[in-house]
Amino acid sequence: MFKITVTPRFGDIDGLRHVNNTVLAVWFEKGRNPIFRMFTPDLDLSYEKWKLILVRTEFDFLAQMYYGSDVEIRSYITHIGNSSFTIGHEAWQDGELKAKGKAVLVHYDFIEQRKKPIPPDIRSQLEKHLVEED
Amino acid sequence: MFKITVTPRFGDIDGLRHVNNTVLAVWFEKGRNPIFRMFTPDLDLSYEKWKLILVRTEFDFLAQMYYGSDVEIRSYITHIGNSSFTIGHEAWQDGELKAKGKAVLVHYDFIEQRKKPIPPDIRSQLEKHLVEED
Amino acid sequence: MFKITVTPRFGDIDGLRHVNNTVLAVWFEKGRNPIFRMFTPDLDLSYEKWKLILVRTEFDFLAQMYYGSDVEIRSYITHIGNSSFTIGHEAWQDGELKAKGKAVLVHYDFIEQRKKPIPPDIRSQLEKHLVEED
Amino acid sequence: MFKITVTPRFGDIDGLRHVNNTVLAVWFEKGRNPIFRMFTPDLDLSYEKWKLILVRTEFDFLAQMYYGSDVEIRSYITHIGNSSFTIGHEAWQDGELKAKGKAVLVHYDFIEQRKKPIPPDIRSQLEKHLVEED
Repeated sequence: MFKITVTPRFGDIDGLRHVNNTVLAVWFEKGRNPIFRMFTPDLDLSYEKWKLILVRTEFDFLAQMYYGSDVEIRSYITHIGNSSFTIGHEAWQDGELKAKGKAVLVHYDFIEQRKKPIPPDIRSQLEKHLVEED
Repeated sequence: MFKITVTPRFGDIDGLRHVNNTVLAVWFEKGRNPIFRMFTPDLDLSYEKWKLILVRTEFDFLAQMYYGSDVEIRSYITHIGNSSFTIGHEAWQDGELKAKGKAVLVHYDFIEQRKKPIPPDIRSQLEKHLVEED
Repeated sequence: MFKITVTPRFGDIDGLRHVNNTVLAVWFEKGRNPIFRMFTPDLDLSYEKWKLILVRTEFDFLAQMYYGSDVEIRSYITHIGNSSFTIGHEAWQDGELKAKGKAVLVHYDFIEQRKKPIPPDIRSQLEKHLVEED
Repeated sequence: MFKITVTPRFGDIDGLRHVNNTVLAVWFEKGRNPIFRMFTPDLDLSYEKWKLILVRTEFDFLAQMYYGSDVEIRSYITHIGNSSFTIGHEAWQDGELKAKGKAVLVHYDFIEQRKKPIPPDIRSQLEKHLVEED
């Protein structure tokens, strides 16, 4: 499991004084950095070196998040297919699970513009972070 | 069906030169304005007047979106329950469906901090925008 | 003068129930699209075709902006130098000037990585939108 | 001086593969958290407790920032007036000053809707972080 800590920003809070839903998309994307590095260690965004395309995300907002305390984003792998895999995300604040989500990514060749099987060495890295879903 | 047009911004484009996934969360939220107005006509965000809480979103990224042409966001109702309802969203660019999504909202009383049935007059407004799902 | 209309989004509003300051940076950047097109008509972001680099922005927040009404973003040219020029921006809501700002851009060659004089044909286009500052 | 570390996110990078200018507004706002806490220790955003209004920001983009390495945001006080004060911000990546900026805030009473002198105890806290400008 990968963990990062994010500190809510004044403007992350919306008119209801809770963290806005779109901020979770940002935080979960930030949580994917170490998984992106498995495919592109230096995070070079050129079409020659970047290897992933996002095809689906989902978010469940379980409880409100507030401004004054940090949020821990936990990310892990929930499924590995032939060319795609699924990341699970959780946002914890004050010891409580506040939001969870998923992101489905595809191993993709931007030069040839087609998906490719996940190479065995990366697959074994992903498997180390595989968590059984409930 | 509600339609708005959004113009991609320079910074909406990410390092792969496509519209970043988190921008769709922003655009679809913008598309919900007319539905929010059914519950709070002046969009007053005080706890006395605001009546909706978001509990789930999902996004399918079907094809890449680019910087130079406008995007039409279409929003409609796909399901109406007792206190919750579901909005369907679509993003069209250059005549092609590029992304679609859903948002589940709950009619909520922020003072009493509990969900409430959707009032009949609002329910009939929502029903006018109900679209059968495939 | 270039004018676009932006509709505030639920999450553009911060905990004080005003448009967050960072949203103005987004709206003003959006207002620069027609000026970007003078340099790169199809807004192609490749290093071969994109020609501008941003070196400075400033923002004056004159009055609060709110959720429920549209905002007009006005953009114009306030200064043209040899290789750089300055854009003036204004945000109007409900007939009142709510924020203003500036952006300084440099005509830049991303392949050679150096600034270049503004070509005469683009200079004359910029001059058509030149507004004397107070 | 206050220091925080931010990790660039995939979508913080724009089509030129540099950190987008609007992201600096977000990062500098995040750097203001400890200064906000001098005025409102629990960061409660109610009009009774929040005490600051932002009136001006400025940004100088000195060099490009990239995706793969962390950025240190440094924040300090550059000027203290009767009711307003100015924050200086810097963004450092890979040992180089990449961007700097300022934010002018006013001590404000949201209930009475008027500015107020900075109280002596908060003034002395601000003074501890005062840095002489070049």
